[in-house]
Amino acid sequence: MTSEKIALTQTVQKGGCAAKVAAATLRQILQQVSFPPAHAALIVDGRHFDDAAIYKITEEIALVHTLDFFTPIVDTPKLFGAIAAANAISDVYAMGGKPITAMGILAFPLSNLPEHIIVDVLQGASDKIAEADANFVGGHSIDDDTLKFGLAVTGLVKPQQVWTNAGAQPGDHLLLTKALGTGTLTAGIKRQQLQEKDIAEALDSMTAINNIIDYLSPELRTAIHAATDITGFGLSGHAMQLANASHVTLNIQTDAVPQFSQTFHCLESGYLTKAHRTNAEYTAPHIDDSKLDTLHRQLIHDPQTSGGLLLSVAPDASQSILQTLHPHFKASAMIGTVHARQTKAVQFE
Amino acid sequence: MTSEKIALTQTVQKGGCAAKVAAATLRQILQQVSFPPAHAALIVDGRHFDDAAIYKITEEIALVHTLDFFTPIVDTPKLFGAIAAANAISDVYAMGGKPITAMGILAFPLSNLPEHIIVDVLQGASDKIAEADANFVGGHSIDDDTLKFGLAVTGLVKPQQVWTNAGAQPGDHLLLTKALGTGTLTAGIKRQQLQEKDIAEALDSMTAINNIIDYLSPELRTAIHAATDITGFGLSGHAMQLANASHVTLNIQTDAVPQFSQTFHCLESGYLTKAHRTNAEYTAPHIDDSKLDTLHRQLIHDPQTSGGLLLSVAPDASQSILQTLHPHFKASAMIGTVHARQTKAVQFE
Repeated sequence: MTSEKIALTQTVQKGGCAAKVAAATLRQILQQVSFPPAHAALIVDGRHFDDAAIYKITEEIALVHTLDFFTPIVDTPKLFGAIAAANAISDVYAMGGKPITAMGILAFPLSNLPEHIIVDVLQGASDKIAEADANFVGGHSIDDDTLKFGLAVTGLVKPQQVWTNAGAQPGDHLLLTKALGTGTLTAGIKRQQLQEKDIAEALDSMTAINNIIDYLSPELRTAIHAATDITGFGLSGHAMQLANASHVTLNIQTDAVPQFSQTFHCLESGYLTKAHRTNAEYTAPHIDDSKLDTLHRQLIHDPQTSGGLLLSVAPDASQSILQTLHPHFKASAMIGTVHARQTKAVQFE
Repeated sequence: MTSEKIALTQTVQKGGCAAKVAAATLRQILQQVSFPPAHAALIVDGRHFDDAAIYKITEEIALVHTLDFFTPIVDTPKLFGAIAAANAISDVYAMGGKPITAMGILAFPLSNLPEHIIVDVLQGASDKIAEADANFVGGHSIDDDTLKFGLAVTGLVKPQQVWTNAGAQPGDHLLLTKALGTGTLTAGIKRQQLQEKDIAEALDSMTAINNIIDYLSPELRTAIHAATDITGFGLSGHAMQLANASHVTLNIQTDAVPQFSQTFHCLESGYLTKAHRTNAEYTAPHIDDSKLDTLHRQLIHDPQTSGGLLLSVAPDASQSILQTLHPHFKASAMIGTVHARQTKAVQFE
């Protein structure tokens, strides 16, 4: 690392979605706030501070709102901007919407980091927003001790075409569109045990926007009964939320879950984050992972940054959806099935 | 300060809008980013990372987007949440819109600050969002070294009723709806030279939402040709932006500019922020403040948090507008006039 080359991950203590506040802590805090009743127009409430919210403005038009930001998880500024943008935009796609506008959330240490780093972060984000056919319409920046970046994104969706995490039906097949492992891989980067070139596969995945809707026919789109994106709470946490919201139990074939080629190596090397532990604690009462070995258990709790979509789809459409998505999302796979509610929300086989 | 009482301003280095990145620095950075052409639907672009953006989704409906967040400028958590919320929401009112949804941007040191502080910050914000008849619909939180809070707010406006800072006309009267001085007053708090009870007047002002539109008749509303809210760049900076966007020159009678009873005392005591200097530098080429003494010069550059609206209004309606607003915004005053463009954007008399 020369003086000209600043490794962004070395400027912060923790990176990416691993830095988000643990779900249990957040829930405990939010329970103490007295919120007034929401307007009837708010058809999906995002008060748990995680996924997106949906607000209906006419019978034909609803807004999808989401917001996400974090510290660097990679060393190259433009990549960081692209990943942060893809990650934020994906929440809109997870609700069946299409993004229209994005505003930047930028905190950076004016005195420590050269300006060109900020330019590159914004360029990476701007390119990604353009790829999603949305507009970068402003934002806010402050002078801060460490670099943080993210977006508040608004999208449009027809109220009757909203995907939520509450619609999964017994009999559905579960599809996952991206591989797991960004938590442990970026922890390896952070510890300077890996270089970006070693995880090119994961970088490609994290910078990919989850625009599956752009490829699906109207028929296939309606075969998707529920969707959520896999981010900081890991496959375990987001699958649990989907199962609980839908009042079903998910059976996940852990061997079928896609992962990056380096994921197990990094987990075996002990590149873990605090979120590996807090995700395990968050999900412990609601999932059964007793059949898994340590590595697979770490895999399902691995916090994802810009992870894939978990889709609950009609069984007769699952192969068509997979075939349609595969050219664009090479890791996409069928990972399980949906059943009538049993004791646990998620059963990992 | 007992162990039970944490003074929030003592946990951060700089507070409020004074912590925002200087306009000149930001402009220099943004000029180096290659943004793609904006969609035609983006009728007001917020790319300068300051005010709000407006995106038209039908002939009758446009979205107003804005985003703002900062570190504590007061010591009481609930007050901080209320001020941060009022400040963010006001950008929507400044465009002639009404807020519908808000998402939280929250960074806090989990290990240093007790949870009840976060609860109080969120409660202060939630109450203010409810007062604006909008919905608190989620957000994102991260573990960070210092507390930061703000909102991304979306509002609705009819495209033909948008106020921008580009519509001021020669002959217009200039109205300002709140007093100046929050920068120097909160600097006094930060230096522990003042207590919150000493600046109650300014706290009331900063927690007031700029919902002037709720009080104006349709006739008076259309008499407002241009509007902007006065925040971190001070009266000088925001007046300059309005004058340049409208291709006019503003004549401001500095003696008529409303200020808090403690403002001059605090300026005289030397309670200044970095923004006092950077705002002076930002505006120097474009304004004439040569007739002002040092105190009045500091006043016009004072960075406001949750400041008032600067309105450029038809002269025959200015008295009616003032009379309508006065019961709700007691400091509101006529502070100047608009003229055909001369060399300088703003002339301070």
